[in-house]
This record gives sequence, structure tokens and C-alpha cells, in this order.
Amino acid sequence: ELGDFVEEINNVSLEYVRSFEFDSKLMPSTWIVVRIDGCHFHRFSEIHEFAKPNDDRALNLMNSCAVAILEKFWEDVVFAYGVSDEYSFILNKNSNLYQRRANKIISAIVSYFTSTYVMRWKDFFAQSELKYPPSFDGRAVCYPSTEIIRDYLSWRQVDCHINNQYNSCFWKLVASRKSKREAQNSLKGAQLQKKIEELAIDYNKLPIMYRQGSSIYREKVDNVLMHQENEESTECYGKVIVEHIDIIGPTFWLEHPNILDE
Amino acid sequence: ELGDFVEEINNVSLEYVRSFEFDSKLMPSTWIVVRIDGCHFHRFSEIHEFAKPNDDRALNLMNSCAVAILEKFWEDVVFAYGVSDEYSFILNKNSNLYQRRANKIISAIVSYFTSTYVMRWKDFFAQSELKYPPSFDGRAVCYPSTEIIRDYLSWRQVDCHINNQYNSCFWKLVASRKSKREAQNSLKGAQLQKKIEELAIDYNKLPIMYRQGSSIYREKVDNVLMHQENEESTECYGKVIVEHIDIIGPTFWLEHPNILDE
Amino acid sequence: ELGDFVEEINNVSLEYVRSFEFDSKLMPSTWIVVRIDGCHFHRFSEIHEFAKPNDDRALNLMNSCAVAILEKFWEDVVFAYGVSDEYSFILNKNSNLYQRRANKIISAIVSYFTSTYVMRWKDFFAQSELKYPPSFDGRAVCYPSTEIIRDYLSWRQVDCHINNQYNSCFWKLVASRKSKREAQNSLKGAQLQKKIEELAIDYNKLPIMYRQGSSIYREKVDNVLMHQENEESTECYGKVIVEHIDIIGPTFWLEHPNILDE
Amino acid sequence: ELGDFVEEINNVSLEYVRSFEFDSKLMPSTWIVVRIDGCHFHRFSEIHEFAKPNDDRALNLMNSCAVAILEKFWEDVVFAYGVSDEYSFILNKNSNLYQRRANKIISAIVSYFTSTYVMRWKDFFAQSELKYPPSFDGRAVCYPSTEIIRDYLSWRQVDCHINNQYNSCFWKLVASRKSKREAQNSLKGAQLQKKIEELAIDYNKLPIMYRQGSSIYREKVDNVLMHQENEESTECYGKVIVEHIDIIGPTFWLEHPNILDE
Repeated sequence: ELGDFVEEINNVSLEYVRSFEFDSKLMPSTWIVVRIDGCHFHRFSEIHEFAKPNDDRALNLMNSCAVAILEKFWEDVVFAYGVSDEYSFILNKNSNLYQRRANKIISAIVSYFTSTYVMRWKDFFAQSELKYPPSFDGRAVCYPSTEIIRDYLSWRQVDCHINNQYNSCFWKLVASRKSKREAQNSLKGAQLQKKIEELAIDYNKLPIMYRQGSSIYREKVDNVLMHQENEESTECYGKVIVEHIDIIGPTFWLEHPNILDE
Repeated sequence: ELGDFVEEINNVSLEYVRSFEFDSKLMPSTWIVVRIDGCHFHRFSEIHEFAKPNDDRALNLMNSCAVAILEKFWEDVVFAYGVSDEYSFILNKNSNLYQRRANKIISAIVSYFTSTYVMRWKDFFAQSELKYPPSFDGRAVCYPSTEIIRDYLSWRQVDCHINNQYNSCFWKLVASRKSKREAQNSLKGAQLQKKIEELAIDYNKLPIMYRQGSSIYREKVDNVLMHQENEESTECYGKVIVEHIDIIGPTFWLEHPNILDE
Repeated sequence: ELGDFVEEINNVSLEYVRSFEFDSKLMPSTWIVVRIDGCHFHRFSEIHEFAKPNDDRALNLMNSCAVAILEKFWEDVVFAYGVSDEYSFILNKNSNLYQRRANKIISAIVSYFTSTYVMRWKDFFAQSELKYPPSFDGRAVCYPSTEIIRDYLSWRQVDCHINNQYNSCFWKLVASRKSKREAQNSLKGAQLQKKIEELAIDYNKLPIMYRQGSSIYREKVDNVLMHQENEESTECYGKVIVEHIDIIGPTFWLEHPNILDE
Repeated sequence: ELGDFVEEINNVSLEYVRSFEFDSKLMPSTWIVVRIDGCHFHRFSEIHEFAKPNDDRALNLMNSCAVAILEKFWEDVVFAYGVSDEYSFILNKNSNLYQRRANKIISAIVSYFTSTYVMRWKDFFAQSELKYPPSFDGRAVCYPSTEIIRDYLSWRQVDCHINNQYNSCFWKLVASRKSKREAQNSLKGAQLQKKIEELAIDYNKLPIMYRQGSSIYREKVDNVLMHQENEESTECYGKVIVEHIDIIGPTFWLEHPNILDE
């Protein structure tokens, strides 16, 4: 029945229909950042009763999913930095993942992250059912030099710091029986450093994960060892580790020169 | 400790770091198709022992996720067509979802689809554990007229038809103790219509879902009824239905003029 | 001497160097507008002593160059509208000029227009030497339907009207010994229609070219005639004509249905 | 008369019409190459009787126009390389010309080059009238590092070398009464180096401009001098010079470190 139409559509229209497709490619030889963000996680965190301002279960679940990304895309993703419901993945300058097609890269990373998030939910929220499907959006940005990619990461870590100061004050105020509106007003335009003192928050005693976010990368593997043990290639890349460290200063990068090695 | 750096990065570098971001926007007043595809679903279907050439559980799970998309993005997505591990979602010409930013639209749809897929897996595969996180990639294409969006859908349905013919033959051959290699060779360049007859496949008796794929849209709601019952706005848009129908010919579209109504 | 290097660069780097190139293509089946604008024509018009607010020589030179574009790109450009130092060229929806590569289309049209402008300068400014090289910039915009392309043209003609009202008032004030600053201030936020009356400008007596801009298109050719006379193919497309007409209302378009014929 | 319509189009449609415009921006902190090419210069060179394989008048006119580009865009264009009817302009990594909008940059450079070409034609072709308007097309490419921009320039100079070898052989054959077809066939797949010897072409005696193309840049100015003489700012940037030199090897770049200085 479809016969004639099949002929026609194959010969005449297919090329035309496909001519509307386009692939925007990310510039070669630049660092690619894929940043994902929870969609409407304000509501999601309320309905799933996340502790405020930071929920260890939720943060550890995010970290676990980010580790999964570094394991799956081990040839391409060299570093990840996460805070709250956001994660940034850095792809190697020379990565040719999906021929650097932006849409493929973004959607495949977002999708795998989401999938892992749902599958591992129960590992982190044993007592709490997932009430509806969470989702994340994603975007890609290219940076042409190592300096700028480090500026990018510094920006995210500064943001973590500022948000954490703000949220610590906000929830302390709410805990002291202020309404959310009142808490918000009292912080509008305030110097956060001062507010923290006023509210007697012992900021430096807060868990370092809250203050510095989470950095994920692969341990460098000893080459000699690698050859001797004759393991699978993915193993050569070393174990993926999660740390809560200063990525703004030079120390970490000097100690791990291979991560952003061109 | 971060104090000084915070100042500096806020005032000097932030604007610079952000200047690398870009948002490609999809052309206004055009139909947007977001097509998602399972990543490495060949392997995924083997490991999860999908029935071949078509697995009802897998297809119904896909359909269920697509229904969820039409329900969540009810203001924007007006039609969906799916076959195998692929689904196309048509957004209204006038949709302003995420200000038509391509990356946001693609990633949010892919992510919600994936999330739903994992959460509902057990509803369709009661006996079979999900062994690892499935993922999907996505892309967006714009079409400037109703004719072309219909050509697009025809292309996908013809593809469904051809693939289903091929797969029916292939798995019949495999069932008759040919190796996969032999089956492939015997079909190379063959006229599928003839092969179907030779192999005594009663093609028209195959379930219509296999032959025509799945089309999803909202039932038109009677306006008078709508106002009387004073229901929530989402309800006005009618129930989402899944059908297995010919979307190449004019009949369906003449009977549902509102779907692609400009 | 270059020998070895030639080998190396040909085999190793060429593909890499070229991988940075990209061609952004304009969406198929959409009307393309290429709009060009004089660069710093405020200064150019002063140095070349253009009559104010409108210089017939300058406008006729612009029109002459636009006619040249319609003649050279006769298969692609179907209409042009110009005012002051700006011209918009409409390419047919189905044009495949340079495979719809944006940069090629824009640069080739801008370049040919510029070249013609310089070559024909002396035909319009017999008494006045060209003192330095004029230049134009260009951009392309796609519009998916005939309605929107007409909205675009209406927008440009309304702009012509408003600018001409403003400039007529401004230069009348300057002629009456106001300084430019004073003239500007006196018009700030004013109702132009009223100002025109106050200043006793007989607006409707102004040349129609000033009030309506210039529209350029090809006369439709009688098919029978065409075949009889056996002329060159470009001739079939009819003579290019310049008119000063209302392109906002429906009349012109009803009388020339072939111009925006899909 | 337009009154009502003016209101309507201003309030309702203008924003909509403009929403179709888009500006693709070139990535910050990358070297921009704008390469322009003569359109149909094969025919143009025949009609204007250019000497073959190289016409000094034509090459010097091209160089003169490129110098004009470096003078006009002195804050942005740091180097140019030209051969035959092609010129590449390198914009500084940090250039913010037209906010790095691709279309503006390309069209403004192409237009000014074209305009200068026509105006200066008579200075180089005193005996020969310009018979029709020449035109150029243009494109932009970004390169993220100094190494790659040098690879780009090496590619163009190698191309110059190969084309010049080929053309020297071709026109020598034509001069020896071969037809163009025969000349072409005799060179198909040939080793050019050998052919040059066979045809007794004293290649290294050919003018260096033919063999190495033309490189254009600004002489570095002594800072002390600059301040003393208190000249106009453009002057600070030094005189623009045209040279015919090897830009593949390191020597030139070591002697002129400021040109590609980041």
C-alpha cells in the first residue's frame, strides 16, 4: 500500500526534508564546558524534603552521578565541578566526542546524568520515594585557553561560596522563626561576612563540601605499573576521585598538571 | 579567605568569562521537531532481552514516556511520533518554550524523557531489572511550513515501514537457523516486498503498532463543556491519546485540523 | 626549498587548519532579506555635500546600484526596497544562491553594490569627486512566510516615512537659522504631524521618492511574447523597474502576485 | 494617511519582525581571519587582459587595497597575506571590532576593499578601463592559538607556492603553442618540481612576489620617539609595509614578536 509513496518520498523529498537539519559544531582545540542544572529544583527539593541549606544525601547523589559521567566518558571528560543542583564537566581540548556536535554532546551527557540520578536515588534516599521524574537542562561553552577555563572554574567556586554564605544566613534566620520574606529582606544588599558574624554562624566549621563544592578528576596512574599489570585501557586512566578543595588558587593545579595539560 | 579574590573575580572577570556563552535560538514562527534516539540501544536491547524484532514492553514504555512529555510540555508539544527507540516531538510554531533556546529545549525534553523511562521501567518490565542507565541523545530541527512538517512525519513513518519489513525478514531468517551474517547477506539489496512473500510472513497480520509506529496527540475538547466544568487549564487541552495510524495520507490530518493549526 | 614542508603541511595540518572553518547556512524555504547600510554615511554625506534632507543624486545612485543587483542576481533577488543609505534585497524562498551560505551571499551582494556605487558615482555626481572609498555593511535575515516578509517591508517603509517627517522638520528649522542642537531639542518627543503643520511644510508636495522610498522589481513578461522573440534568458525575466509606491497596503501586491509567489 | 498603520506596526509587529534577526558572534580571545576572494576573477582577468601567470599591476593593486585595510582598521587588523585574487586579514585576538559580529566584520572589510579596488584601478591600470564592477566574497574563521594561526598562514603560503609552480608550467606550455587543454593534461598528476626542470624554467629567478606572495604589517614604532613627536594615534602604530618573505619558518616571527603578541 505504501509502495508508491515510499518510492516518491525516497527519491524526491528525503533530501529536501533533511536539508533543514544542521549540526552546530564546537570549535576545535578549545576546552568544552558542559554545565547541567536541575530544572525547578527549588520545588523538587521541597517536595523531597531536602535538608536546608545543604542536604548531604542530595549532594552525594549528584557527586555519584558526576563520577559516573567521568567513568563513561573517560576519554573526554577530564574534570568536573559541582555545587547544589549544578555540575560543570570539562572536556579535553582535543576531544572529538560526537565530532564535537553541540547537541549530541549536551544531550548525551544530560541524559546519562539524569538516568543515573534516578537509578541511584534509592542508594542515597533509602527512606524517601522519588515522587516524580527530576530533570536537568544543559548547555555547552567553549574556552580557548587554559587560563580562561581556570577563570571559569574560579567563577563557579566563588559562586558556591557566596551562595553558601547567603543560604547559611537565610536558613539560620528562618530557624530563628523569621518568615522567608523577612529573612530575604534582612539579607537584601547586606555584607554577608558581617551577617555571618552577627548571626554567630561558625562558618569555617561547616563541612568543607558545602563551602568549596565538589571537584572530580582521575588520579594519575604510574606508567610503569600500568604496563606491568596489563589491565584494561579504562583502568589506565586511574580511579575517579571526589574532593572538596580550593580550585581558585594555583596549588591544586600545580600538583595535578596533567588534568588541564594541553 | 576568598574575600579579595571574590571582589576581583566579580568585578573584572565575570563578564569576560560569560562573554563566551552563546544561545542559539530556533527561528520564530517555525515548527520545531525535537527528535530523540536511544544511545547504543542495540546493546541495551540485547542485554535486557528485548523480543525481536519488536518488544511490546519496550515500545509501550517509550509511548508512556512520550505521553508524559505531552503532558508536561502541554502548552508547547502538539504531536509526537515514535518508532523503535526513537521519538519525534513537534512543538507548536508559536511556542516560546525557553525563548526557543535550542540547547535548553533539547536537554530539558531529553532529560525528562530519560527520567520517566527509568522510573517507569518496572511498570513495563516487571520481571527484568534495569541493568545500567539507559540514555538518549536529541537534536532540534525547524520547519517553516505545515507541508514540510508533514513531509517530515511521512519520512519517519516510511522509515518505520521499511525498517519493520527488513527486521521482520531478518529475524524470520534468524529464527530459521540462519546466522545473523547470513540473514544480513540474504537481504542485502533485496526487494523487501518479495522477501516477505518468499518467507511467508503474513505482514498485514502483524500488530499495527509495529507497522505504523505510534502517534500521540491531544483529543480536542468541546469548548462549551470546557467552560461549564471550570476545570484546570491543562484539562482544557484534552486527554493525550496514543494511536497507530497512517499519518502520511490526508485523512488523519483532515479529521484533526487543530493539531497543526497555525 | 619548501619541498619537505609542503609535504608535511599537506598531509598533516591542512585538514586540521580547515576544520576551523564553518558555513552557516540560511534555512531552506524561507525568504532571505539582505539589508545593506552605508558605513558612517553621516560623515560621507557631509564631505560630499549631499543636499539635506534628501539628495536626488545620492538616492538615484543608490537606486541604480540596486537595479544592478537585481540584474546580476536575477535568478535570486525578486524585490528591493531602499531609503536613504540603506537597501533591502529579498531573495526568493527557493533561492539556492551559494547553497544559501550566509557569508557568501552577504559579502557578494555588498561587494557588487559597493563596486557599482564607485563606478557609477561620476554618472550622478558629475561635478563632485569621490573623496574617499565609501563602504557598506550587510546582514541577512530569514522570514518563513509571505506575511512576515510583507511585515518586514512595511516596517522599512514606515521607518522611511517617520525619518522623512523628522528630517523635513529638522532641516526646515536649521534653514530658519536654528542651530542643529536647537532643532534637535525642539523635535524631541514632538508629534511630527503637528510640527509639520506648525512649520508650514507642504509635506504631500514633497517628491514621492522621499516619502515612500524606492521599490525595485521586474516587470512580468508576457509568455507568448517571450517565446516568439527568442531572447536571452535574462530577458525573460522582464525589465527591472524603480517605483515610489505604497508597499504597506494590499494593492501593489494584488497587482503583482508573481513577486512574492511561492 | 499612514498614521494608523504607523501606530499599529510600531506597537504590535516591530518587535516580532526584529525577533528574526540574529547576530552570530565570533568567539572572544581567538584570532579572526577574514579571507576575501575575487568572484569570477578568471573571467575578470581575461577581459582586462592580465598578464599570465602573474600580472604586476593586478597584484600591486591588491596589495594597495590591503594596505588601505590595515590603515583603516589599524586597531584591529595586525597582519595580511595575499596571493593572486585572495587576501587574508588577521584580526587581533582581543579585537572587539563591531562586538565581533561576523556579518558586520566580513561585510565592512569586503566592502572597503572593493571600494578601494575600484577607486585605485586607474592608478595601476592607466591604459585600461575597468569594464564592469569587480566583486569579492568573504568569510571569517577563528583560530584559538598562535600556533594554529601560523599554521593557517603557512597553508596559504604553501598554496601560493604550489599554484605558482603549476601556473608557471602551464603558461610556459601555452607559450610553446600547446592548447590549454593539452597543457592541463600534461600537468595532470605531474611532479611540478620535475616539470619545472624539463621546461627549463629558472624558477628561483622569478620575482619573489610571485613565489612568496605579499605580507603586510605595521613597523614597530620606537616608544620614546612616539611620545616625543606627539603625533596622531594612528601614527603610533607605525608605517604599514608590504614584503615578500617566508612566513612559514620561524625567522620572520622571531624578528617581529609583536605582530602575534597576545
